[in-house]
Amino acid sequence: GGISCVLQDGEVFEKAGVNVSVVFGLLSEEAARQMRSRGKSLKAKDGKLPFCAMGVSSVIHPKNPHVPTMHFNYRYFEIEEADGTKQWWFGGGTDLTPTYLNEEDAVHFHKTLKEACDKHDLKLYPKYKKWCDDYFYIKHRGERRGIGGIFFDDVDSPSKEEVFQFVKSCAKAVVPCYVPIVKRHCHDSFTPEEKLWQQLRRGRYVEFNLVYDRGTKFGLLTPGSRIESILMSLPLTARWEYMHTPPESSKEAEILEVLRNPKDWVH
Amino acid sequence: GGISCVLQDGEVFEKAGVNVSVVFGLLSEEAARQMRSRGKSLKAKDGKLPFCAMGVSSVIHPKNPHVPTMHFNYRYFEIEEADGTKQWWFGGGTDLTPTYLNEEDAVHFHKTLKEACDKHDLKLYPKYKKWCDDYFYIKHRGERRGIGGIFFDDVDSPSKEEVFQFVKSCAKAVVPCYVPIVKRHCHDSFTPEEKLWQQLRRGRYVEFNLVYDRGTKFGLLTPGSRIESILMSLPLTARWEYMHTPPESSKEAEILEVLRNPKDWVH
Repeated sequence: GGISCVLQDGEVFEKAGVNVSVVFGLLSEEAARQMRSRGKSLKAKDGKLPFCAMGVSSVIHPKNPHVPTMHFNYRYFEIEEADGTKQWWFGGGTDLTPTYLNEEDAVHFHKTLKEACDKHDLKLYPKYKKWCDDYFYIKHRGERRGIGGIFFDDVDSPSKEEVFQFVKSCAKAVVPCYVPIVKRHCHDSFTPEEKLWQQLRRGRYVEFNLVYDRGTKFGLLTPGSRIESILMSLPLTARWEYMHTPPESSKEAEILEVLRNPKDWVH
Repeated sequence: GGISCVLQDGEVFEKAGVNVSVVFGLLSEEAARQMRSRGKSLKAKDGKLPFCAMGVSSVIHPKNPHVPTMHFNYRYFEIEEADGTKQWWFGGGTDLTPTYLNEEDAVHFHKTLKEACDKHDLKLYPKYKKWCDDYFYIKHRGERRGIGGIFFDDVDSPSKEEVFQFVKSCAKAVVPCYVPIVKRHCHDSFTPEEKLWQQLRRGRYVEFNLVYDRGTKFGLLTPGSRIESILMSLPLTARWEYMHTPPESSKEAEILEVLRNPKDWVH
């Protein structure tokens, strides 16, 4: 079960949603195979694996093109094998999708996430920053969905308690890494051309989520899943223009460059 | 190679595109396997199969919510096996996606396609009408993309010449099945609420094309394919609202009913 809350057509946010879910059940052979392909070897009893999954996720699409879209998701998965042993892991991440590049915002966002990671292990931020850039890749466009953040999955070491503390730090960083950016820009003036570019970028967001996002694809293929919760992540509106190419050295070309070649924001 | 032509933000059409393409090349093992899974058994020479593919396709998204979206595609595929024998087949179809149901239009559209089919074989229309309803199914919504039309693939009998004549009849039916509908409704008045419903239906169009359409998926996965031509089919604008459910016995509920339970339009 779970709870979805969506704000639509607000003053600051065009569409913003939160999903909280806790699910118990039996994993099918097929789903288990998908897990195995991600490095987990699982021994099923009579072809079925009891599992427990829980998570919180959110996507916020602001109205103003100078306020970036933000997404986060933190989740815990537990599965029982035939011999009664339990496998568990955490996954999640927080990432930012600006319409226009603002270096100060990008640095603030990444720095806040890095600080949350660094408290636990200095190796985490660089590893999960790269994982994020790799994950949110729109292959057919040669672009990332946004300027990244952190992303990780299948994390089950050093210990359950330590990973949980790390995930809590990440989750606690969501508000300080994003809200100051919203406050700074939610009253910025913008032109119709800037709104249009935002809508085109929203189109790319839809492309990533429907074509590549593992959670979305898994949800759409799972019979009985709650479609409205899964597709909550889609923007209220999006746009596709044939052969839209921003002029060289425009603000639009500037963000594209960063989406094509991810930057190190904290060094 | 090929040619793409797109009209954008026109008086009558919001976005309308045509692709003509002729491609020669070598089919990879992977692509060949995909063909085989569709019932073709192909013997490759050194793992490669020379092929030749050509087709014409078009998607027209009108501005006015009382004018439906129309899509057609007709294509020919030829492949050479290790022993030099050639396999060939035709595929294609024409289908209509209205925002609101107009029975008269639906009957005219299907009747025109049926007449084109009936000239060749009375069994074709019922078979390809059903194939169309099955193909344009948005599984996670339990809805079809539109009110269908005809769809077929892998057609290689009774003879190349006869199938070619049939495909020509279908292609020639495109203008008479669609243009009268455009003319009848392109000056209809409409409300902002009707425009909004059109945008929500456009969102479903995007969902079908990005999640299910075989041509789009194949194109996005093919390295070096021309993304702008493939995604030409997406509407200029689309919208996703959380939990949008039209009131019972509204005009919006009427079209949904037909998308959930396809109708026989010609008997």
